Amino acid sequence: MLYVQKFGGTSVADVERIRNVARRAIKTKRAGHDVVVVVSAMAGETNRLLKLSKSVTPEPSERESDVLVATGEQVTSALTAMAIQHEGEAAESFLGHQVRIVTDSVFSKARIQSIDCTELTSALKEGKIAVVAGFQGVDAEGNITTLGRGGSDTTAVAIAAAMKADACEIYTDVDGVYTTDPNICPSARKLSRISFEEMLELASLGAKVLQIRSVEFGMKYGVPIHVRTSFNDSEGTWVVEEESEMEQVVVSGVAYNRDEAKITIVGVPDHPGIAAAIFTPLSDASIVVDMIIQNASSDGRTDMTFTVPKGDFKRAVETCRKTMEKLGCNDIRGDENIAKISIVGVGMRSHAGVATKMFGILSKEGVNIQMISTSEIKISCVVDAKYTELAVRALHDGFGLGDVDGVSKS
Amino acid sequence: MLYVQKFGGTSVADVERIRNVARRAIKTKRAGHDVVVVVSAMAGETNRLLKLSKSVTPEPSERESDVLVATGEQVTSALTAMAIQHEGEAAESFLGHQVRIVTDSVFSKARIQSIDCTELTSALKEGKIAVVAGFQGVDAEGNITTLGRGGSDTTAVAIAAAMKADACEIYTDVDGVYTTDPNICPSARKLSRISFEEMLELASLGAKVLQIRSVEFGMKYGVPIHVRTSFNDSEGTWVVEEESEMEQVVVSGVAYNRDEAKITIVGVPDHPGIAAAIFTPLSDASIVVDMIIQNASSDGRTDMTFTVPKGDFKRAVETCRKTMEKLGCNDIRGDENIAKISIVGVGMRSHAGVATKMFGILSKEGVNIQMISTSEIKISCVVDAKYTELAVRALHDGFGLGDVDGVSKS
Repeated sequence: MLYVQKFGGTSVADVERIRNVARRAIKTKRAGHDVVVVVSAMAGETNRLLKLSKSVTPEPSERESDVLVATGEQVTSALTAMAIQHEGEAAESFLGHQVRIVTDSVFSKARIQSIDCTELTSALKEGKIAVVAGFQGVDAEGNITTLGRGGSDTTAVAIAAAMKADACEIYTDVDGVYTTDPNICPSARKLSRISFEEMLELASLGAKVLQIRSVEFGMKYGVPIHVRTSFNDSEGTWVVEEESEMEQVVVSGVAYNRDEAKITIVGVPDHPGIAAAIFTPLSDASIVVDMIIQNASSDGRTDMTFTVPKGDFKRAVETCRKTMEKLGCNDIRGDENIAKISIVGVGMRSHAGVATKMFGILSKEGVNIQMISTSEIKISCVVDAKYTELAVRALHDGFGLGDVDGVSKS
Repeated sequence: MLYVQKFGGTSVADVERIRNVARRAIKTKRAGHDVVVVVSAMAGETNRLLKLSKSVTPEPSERESDVLVATGEQVTSALTAMAIQHEGEAAESFLGHQVRIVTDSVFSKARIQSIDCTELTSALKEGKIAVVAGFQGVDAEGNITTLGRGGSDTTAVAIAAAMKADACEIYTDVDGVYTTDPNICPSARKLSRISFEEMLELASLGAKVLQIRSVEFGMKYGVPIHVRTSFNDSEGTWVVEEESEMEQVVVSGVAYNRDEAKITIVGVPDHPGIAAAIFTPLSDASIVVDMIIQNASSDGRTDMTFTVPKGDFKRAVETCRKTMEKLGCNDIRGDENIAKISIVGVGMRSHAGVATKMFGILSKEGVNIQMISTSEIKISCVVDAKYTELAVRALHDGFGLGDVDGVSKS
């Protein structure tokens, strides 16, 4: 079997933990498997380097930032290879340009275009454990690129896909994917299995276990991902292709996101092209709009409500104000004090009445719903931010998520 | 004109100094020249990284050590490029594998085999200042290599040679090459010019201003090297091809080295092949022998005296003891308490009596000479270490080195 094992920043935070990483890789190797280890920078290192660059210039060039922060993973890959050698196994480190992992040229958030497995494969054939610096690649011109925060997950899953690994293990400081955030819901339960689609919805909704693109890679190439803790040997959560039994569970998890703000443009003249007129200036300003709700028209006018990242809120309001004047709208209202609460589950496809049940649970707790958005396997509601914990707990328990894995009350 | 400017660790020790480096490069650029900057790691960084590796394993693999320490120069090259951009000039950083600087595969002390100037030249043509990470290269298989301590000097001079630069400026924390160590001889004087040959002798004798290999590169390819301080604009010392006026100065500098130890094998049977029998086991053990003296033979036996680095002294004595038993020598004696004092000057070629004058000066101060070795432009004497400062000062003043540049009393 071939395993790709990825260790995040907290798992390689100091020399003692790097030794643990080495021992874990060796254990897998000595059980008769091939092992590729992918490492992040030591916890805090990327921030230290970014701080250093900010002290040189407030707006460092993205090309040079990538050259700078890529050293974090380079250091860890060398130290990890040394630690493995110290324990008596052969190892060799590989940087992005050595593997080689070719990306596009979008510095700081590059996308992987191809991975050449020749060097890694021959290292494995020589009986070595290959240690790959995560998060980094090179573009076609040989410039160093990085994949964005959490990019080491993507490196690991992409290598697992390219090498047709039997599994990609993501070692992290949590022991798996939970039905919801255990910090606000004590009955949250670790899932033993979850589908790629569900994980994708949970990841994009704010559960920070896996980088979204790594899940996309896993789904596209069918790489089973095992999210687990590096601090003990317990099984974590397998992210896998959808299985028939998964449909029996209507809701797999409850996610929340407090990083968005809501904008309503009141009294928009209701004629064709109005949505384009509002949202084109926003996308031109690189503001990502998430939910969009257009109310039914009355008197030839309608209200348009949408959400944007909190960090872009002020810019978005200014942009919309200009649009408003052109279109002759009545007013613009903003609210930064909102939360998006979502339930996710592939079982929704085959179960009716899930939305009704969600609204009922929220209503019973006195939580007013401001916006609703649905997809095939997800229902999201925007509510006042103060209800976040209450709403998450009510939905979690209302859909029976605190119970034994695989059996749902709903 | 094309200038290569190299900045050592103390010149890039913090963000403020990196800004100074940027300003200096920009000043040269705005005076109408092309500029390639070569940077070392920030002072202390290489040691920090080596310490980190030692905490993982007492004997880190040299391949992985090179991957690790190469990050030091990578960080500085990115920060320096950012600092230049911040001041309004275009800049781009280059790592060893990006330039590309191809070396042999002797990790931790690799030798440069070739430099491809294509990328650097096109960056200069685009009006950019090119910032190269010193000290690092890649071997033919794409492994990261480093050139050994002080290797950034070699990077700079090698790039200057490959690009046919008009000068290679080595910025350091001293303001030039001195007639001797100012710390032990107050009348030591900065030289305005020195020949490659003299600099080579001074460098190999323990004056730590320039790495030897960088001087060899400069001599081989005729690159004028300007050693100067990064803390002000004063002229430093030019290391150049020998000029006729240099011969008028008999002695250019006095060097000393306290890092060697002396070994004498007493009563060696004096027949052909005896030197090989003694020194082959030493070179097999990678011990570098410096001076060798064989006394005149009496009764068919001779004494063989030589010096080795202090760090190899014990191993050398053990190795020689085995040889001694085989050859049937009488005794072995060692002394770690020695210093080698040398005078250097291309003028010696055309002046007689220089050695006699040196011995006279030392004798007058009561300094006993234990060993003597000479080359075309150098005379070295081994003396008791306690006489180091006394001998250096006496020779420095005796050969009139404290006087005005270019005029000698001798």
